[in-house]
Amino acid sequence: MRADDKRADPANERFIEVVEVGPRDGFQIERTFIPTSEKIAIINAMIEAGVRRLEVTSFVSPRAVPQLADAAEVLAGIDRSKGAFLTALVPNPKGAERAAEAGIDAMVVFCSASETHNAKNVNRTIAESLAGFREVVAVAEDARIPVVGAIATAFGCPFEGEVPPDAVVRVARAYRDLGIRQVGLGDTTGMATPPTVQSAVRALAAETPELEIGLHFHNTRGIGLANVLVGLAEGIRRYDASIAGLGGCPFAAGATGNICTEDLVYLLQESGYQTGIDLDALCAIARRVERLIGRPLPGQVMKAGPRLKRHAADEVATAAG
Amino acid sequence: MRADDKRADPANERFIEVVEVGPRDGFQIERTFIPTSEKIAIINAMIEAGVRRLEVTSFVSPRAVPQLADAAEVLAGIDRSKGAFLTALVPNPKGAERAAEAGIDAMVVFCSASETHNAKNVNRTIAESLAGFREVVAVAEDARIPVVGAIATAFGCPFEGEVPPDAVVRVARAYRDLGIRQVGLGDTTGMATPPTVQSAVRALAAETPELEIGLHFHNTRGIGLANVLVGLAEGIRRYDASIAGLGGCPFAAGATGNICTEDLVYLLQESGYQTGIDLDALCAIARRVERLIGRPLPGQVMKAGPRLKRHAADEVATAAG
Repeated sequence: MRADDKRADPANERFIEVVEVGPRDGFQIERTFIPTSEKIAIINAMIEAGVRRLEVTSFVSPRAVPQLADAAEVLAGIDRSKGAFLTALVPNPKGAERAAEAGIDAMVVFCSASETHNAKNVNRTIAESLAGFREVVAVAEDARIPVVGAIATAFGCPFEGEVPPDAVVRVARAYRDLGIRQVGLGDTTGMATPPTVQSAVRALAAETPELEIGLHFHNTRGIGLANVLVGLAEGIRRYDASIAGLGGCPFAAGATGNICTEDLVYLLQESGYQTGIDLDALCAIARRVERLIGRPLPGQVMKAGPRLKRHAADEVATAAG
Repeated sequence: MRADDKRADPANERFIEVVEVGPRDGFQIERTFIPTSEKIAIINAMIEAGVRRLEVTSFVSPRAVPQLADAAEVLAGIDRSKGAFLTALVPNPKGAERAAEAGIDAMVVFCSASETHNAKNVNRTIAESLAGFREVVAVAEDARIPVVGAIATAFGCPFEGEVPPDAVVRVARAYRDLGIRQVGLGDTTGMATPPTVQSAVRALAAETPELEIGLHFHNTRGIGLANVLVGLAEGIRRYDASIAGLGGCPFAAGATGNICTEDLVYLLQESGYQTGIDLDALCAIARRVERLIGRPLPGQVMKAGPRLKRHAADEVATAAG
């Protein structure tokens, strides 16, 4: 662990919370079932490496997403001794009951900022989705579990195109009115750009200042980490990412999914932020995940190694430039 | 072409010069000889798409880099009617003679900021390299061709580790004293980070303000485009990139090389900059280059398509988040 991260303190203004979402957003697209024990081992290794918040699964219908049918078993196997904060997607009251029973630390509800995507994703209007969350929130309140509101297609919709900041604010207000305190802006299909990030974040800061914002970028068009720099400049302190860059884009074969956790941690640490995460350990986990998945994953730092890894002068020839 | 780029004007303060270096920095690592006619066709297609500055080859010894042995033939086949500015690497006076004869628009000399890398790359000390450029500059002056000074390992050396801004300034001063007016800072093995970019650029702005700076980033650790945002904030207006993300890193199998041209153009255009480049046309060329090279290349936008490409609501299912 780097010296700066031995002192990592969530209260420090240079501390950035990195949220690992690979076990949910990444694994869910894998067709071959990943053994529950492997999922648990990877999650526990990340906790051991210093990751303190993870979206570990989704309490959706096992028929809809067979890969995550083991949600409760996964949760039961996770090492809670280090204070890791575990979240899971919860689509409905039934999922909320299961999540509460399994001992989740926060439930994540989700709704798109664009009607077409929400209809396509959950077969409901945005209003229907939001109304449905009342019952989820009630279940969560009974169990004294906080709820996080995710806003999908916050930076653009693959069906509707541009998503105005107002549409994001509308969902955020509804979340606030449900008693939610944390929202996440989801770059569902990799359409976020520096101006859309800036305008969405500023609109929320102006209209719903009581909400704490997290950003969830995909690297579908290669600029996910550039968007993180924009978020940092706007004062955002929580970023989702996926180990090894697990995940994909349902609209583009070969396109990448979430920004990669170890590349994000590298960028943050090199930019003088604290994450509390051991980058070398994270890279080793990323390589393990790549072997497990059985195809090359997009993470770069796990391949290139840390920046100051020295090479012997007689190691290999380099080309100019 | 986007509306903003129909009006692209190099004199506009929002204009950014994108320099295509794939034909040199990318092709040079390919073991299989790429037919000269293919190289010419790709370069001409990029010019047709609006690219106006390209590093098209290297006048190195054909024995050292057989892939670029056709330097003069490539240059002879390029469409000069649109005012494209063509540069090439020139390692020595002999290369300079060949480059001048072939009709290059600018010669690029290169020297590392770190001794070990320079020794490894060209078997000379930095002082020997710089002294040797006097003759190159003399050849160029005779032919009335400008010389650009590239500074390799400007943001870190794979052998020595950190490269202090002073070391970069030292080479830049020597270039200036040779009459050079443009320098390029090379992120040779992908070690640039936001702080190293900022400090190197600021050191040059303070110590050699008469030099115009270009940035040459590699995406070896995934943060190349984040570094571009840092360069833009520092006022840098010229960036090298490689079509489809061609190229590699000699120290890491599977790691990427230069930042990808079409992803860079996407970031710039979406951030309100003008490039004069037709992104759709560039993506089509990137896919052609990928077919030519015969393996997946790292470019993302060529796979995902432009941001506002709409999908029909019945096209595919998406997953939440």
